[in-house]
Amino acid sequence: MAVGLAGLPPLRPVPGIRLGTTAAGLRKPGRRDLVVIECAPGTEAAAVFTRNRFRAAPVLVAQAHLARHAPRALVVNTGYANAGTGEPGREDAEATCAALARLLGCTPAEVLPFSTGVIGERLPRERLTAALPAAVAALSEAGWADAAHGIMTTDTVPKGASRTVQLGGTEITITGIAKGAGMIQPNMATMLAFIATDAAVARPVLADCLRHASARSFNRITVDGDTSTNDACVLLATGRAGSSPVAAASDARYPALRDAVTDVCTALAQAIVRDGEGATKFVTIEVVNGPSEEDCLEVAYAIANSPLVKTALFASDPNWGRILAAIGRARVAALAVERVGLWINGVCVVRDGGLAPDYTEDAGRAAMQRAEITVRVSLGSGRASAQVWTCDFSHDYVSINADYRS
Amino acid sequence: MAVGLAGLPPLRPVPGIRLGTTAAGLRKPGRRDLVVIECAPGTEAAAVFTRNRFRAAPVLVAQAHLARHAPRALVVNTGYANAGTGEPGREDAEATCAALARLLGCTPAEVLPFSTGVIGERLPRERLTAALPAAVAALSEAGWADAAHGIMTTDTVPKGASRTVQLGGTEITITGIAKGAGMIQPNMATMLAFIATDAAVARPVLADCLRHASARSFNRITVDGDTSTNDACVLLATGRAGSSPVAAASDARYPALRDAVTDVCTALAQAIVRDGEGATKFVTIEVVNGPSEEDCLEVAYAIANSPLVKTALFASDPNWGRILAAIGRARVAALAVERVGLWINGVCVVRDGGLAPDYTEDAGRAAMQRAEITVRVSLGSGRASAQVWTCDFSHDYVSINADYRS
Repeated sequence: MAVGLAGLPPLRPVPGIRLGTTAAGLRKPGRRDLVVIECAPGTEAAAVFTRNRFRAAPVLVAQAHLARHAPRALVVNTGYANAGTGEPGREDAEATCAALARLLGCTPAEVLPFSTGVIGERLPRERLTAALPAAVAALSEAGWADAAHGIMTTDTVPKGASRTVQLGGTEITITGIAKGAGMIQPNMATMLAFIATDAAVARPVLADCLRHASARSFNRITVDGDTSTNDACVLLATGRAGSSPVAAASDARYPALRDAVTDVCTALAQAIVRDGEGATKFVTIEVVNGPSEEDCLEVAYAIANSPLVKTALFASDPNWGRILAAIGRARVAALAVERVGLWINGVCVVRDGGLAPDYTEDAGRAAMQRAEITVRVSLGSGRASAQVWTCDFSHDYVSINADYRS
Repeated sequence: MAVGLAGLPPLRPVPGIRLGTTAAGLRKPGRRDLVVIECAPGTEAAAVFTRNRFRAAPVLVAQAHLARHAPRALVVNTGYANAGTGEPGREDAEATCAALARLLGCTPAEVLPFSTGVIGERLPRERLTAALPAAVAALSEAGWADAAHGIMTTDTVPKGASRTVQLGGTEITITGIAKGAGMIQPNMATMLAFIATDAAVARPVLADCLRHASARSFNRITVDGDTSTNDACVLLATGRAGSSPVAAASDARYPALRDAVTDVCTALAQAIVRDGEGATKFVTIEVVNGPSEEDCLEVAYAIANSPLVKTALFASDPNWGRILAAIGRARVAALAVERVGLWINGVCVVRDGGLAPDYTEDAGRAAMQRAEITVRVSLGSGRASAQVWTCDFSHDYVSINADYRS
C-alpha cells in the first residue's frame, strides 16, 4: 500500500524516445515484463550504476557498451536479475542486445540491457528474445505509462514523473519512470530509473547533471539498507526540442535544466520509498547543524535503517529513545550528545540531549499518527545538513520478503 | 521462541557472591524486576560498557563509581532503562545506590547501578527503593537462577552458564547470567551480563580477561544491529576459592582462566541470540580467508544485519543472491568477487564468485530447513577470519517491537 501516491501522473512524451512493452511470460504468464526504449539517432546518454561489488551481468554489459557508443535502445526485463550468473549470464545479456540490434538495425553495442528480479537464476533467453518483436511493434512516443507498468516487480504502483521547463525560450520536457521496492539503499542509483529529455545536452554536461540529480534523490533513499546488484539510472537527451545544445556546465541555461532533472528524480525516488515493501509511512529524516554533510548522512541513515525505529514508526509510537539510541551509534567522529535536539513533525521532543520539558506524550503520539512523518535532528555542532527518505518496517515487509521466491 | 535453548542449566554458586531478587512492581505488578548482587569484601571487578554516545544514567554512574572503588554490591532493575533522562535520571541512579548502601553498610560509591527497559521515562525511585529491603532479605549464594529471571525483559527464557576449571590445583567456579533480547549489536558488551568467579585475580588481569572474553562473545552478536544505551557486562572475582591471586597476565594459570571466562561469555552471548526477539533460527556467520579481521567482521555484519537475508532465513529460503548482495555492499576496501565462496551448512552454493556447478536448489533448501544455520563465506584474499552470531527476522520481531510500549 503506497503512502500518498495517487497513481501515475500524466507522462508527457519526449520527442525522440519511443517505448514498447509486452508480456514475455518470463516468470509469470500474462504479466508485462519486457520493455524496449528506442532512442532517436543523436541521443546522448549518461548513466550511474550500483556500487555493489557484485554487479549484475547486465550492469557490466551496459557499462561496457556505454563506454563505446551512445545508445540506440535500452531493453529491460523483470523477473530475473541476471546477477550472480557469471559468464553465462553475461552471454545472455549480450545475446539479448544482439537480438534487439538485429530488429532495430543497429549494432549490439548500441543496446543497453537492464534486468531486475531474482538473483542467481539464468535469464530465460529464448522466451525473452522471442518476445522482442512484440515489444518493438508496440514502440510509441506515448508508451511511458505502459513502460512504467512493465518494469514493476514488488512495486504496488507504477512510478513516473514529468516536468516541462523553459530553456532559453524553448520549452523542453523531462519524463522519467522508476521501479523499487525492496533491496533499496542505492549507493549510486536506484533499482531502475529511466529519464529522458528532448533538450540537446552534451554528454559531459549530461553526466554532471545526472550525478547532481542522483546524489540528491536516488542516493538519499532507503527502504531496508540493502544495496541491489542491479541499480541503474539512465538519463537520455534526444535534442529534439530544437534548442541549441547545452554544451558546457557554464551555460546559463544549465541550472534550470539541472534543477528540473533533479525535480523529476526526486519525485521518482520519493515514489520508490512511498511504495517501499510493506510501507505504511513516508518518512523524511532531516539532520541539521552537523559538522559535515557526511556526518549528517551517517546519522540520518543510522536512524532510517534502524529496525527498532522503523517498527516504532509502523506502530505510530513516538519512541524517541530508539531514535536517540540510533543517533548514538552512528559512525561519526564526534557527537555532542548534550546539544542534540529532536523534532517529530514539528513537535520538539528532545532539547539539549534530554527530554524537552514541554513535551507531552499526547503531542508525540498525535504527530506520529500521520502517514507522512518528518524526523528532524539538530546536532548543534556545525552548519552542514542532509536529508534522506525512508519508510517504516511492517509485517508486510517480512511477508513480502519471506515469500518472494515462492 | 528460543532456538535450541533447553532452559537454564545448573548454575553453581560462587563463594563470596550472594544474589537477591524481588518483585518491586516497577512496570508490571508481580513480575520479578529487581536484583541485588552482593560481593564479599576484597572482590575485584572489571566492567565494559556500551559505546553508544547516549549512555544511560546508570552507565555513567557505574563508570564513575567503579573508577573510585571496588564494588560491594550491584543493583539491577528492569522496566525502565533510565536513559535519556538527563540530570534527574542521574540523581535517581545515585539515590538507588545510596539506599542500597544504607541497607548493606557500605558507601554509595561501592554500589553499581544497572537498568534495562524503556528509554526516556523516569525511574520510579520510590517503588524501587521501597523494594530494596526485600531483595536484600533474599540474598543467597543460591540466588543465581532467580536473578537470571529477575533481569529478563523481552527475553522468553532466562540465560545463564557455569563452568569449573582447575587453576594450579585449585578448582574454581565461573558463573554468569545475561539478558537480551532486542536492540542487540553490542559495541562493547551486551545489554546486561554479570559473571563472577571465586578465583583471586588482580584488577588489571581481570580487565584484560573481560576485554578478551567480550571481544569474542558479546561483541560478536547481533539481533537487529541496534546498539543499546545501557549495555554493560561485569566480571567479579571474589578470591574465595583459596588459590593465590593471578597477579599478572604472564601467570601460567591465566590462559585457563581466560578461556573458561570466554567460554561462559560465549554461552551467554549465544543464548541472547538464540532468544533474539522473534528468532526462529540461530545463525553463525563465518567469514574466512579475508585480508584482515576487521574486513571479515564488516562482511559478517553486512550479512548478519541485512533484513533481506534475515527474512530469507526466516523463510528457510536458500536465497544466496541476497547474501552475495550483502557481501557486495560491505564497507571493505577491496573485494575480489571472482574469488568469493559461500557454503550454507556445508553445502557449497557459490564458488569463484558464481553459482557452484554442482549446487542444487534441493540441497540448499534442505540445508536451510534446519534451525541452526552456518553461513560460511571465503573471501579468497588472505588468512584472517571472524565469526558473528545472529538470528532471523520474523513477523514476531515486528510484533514485539511495534507493541513493546503498549
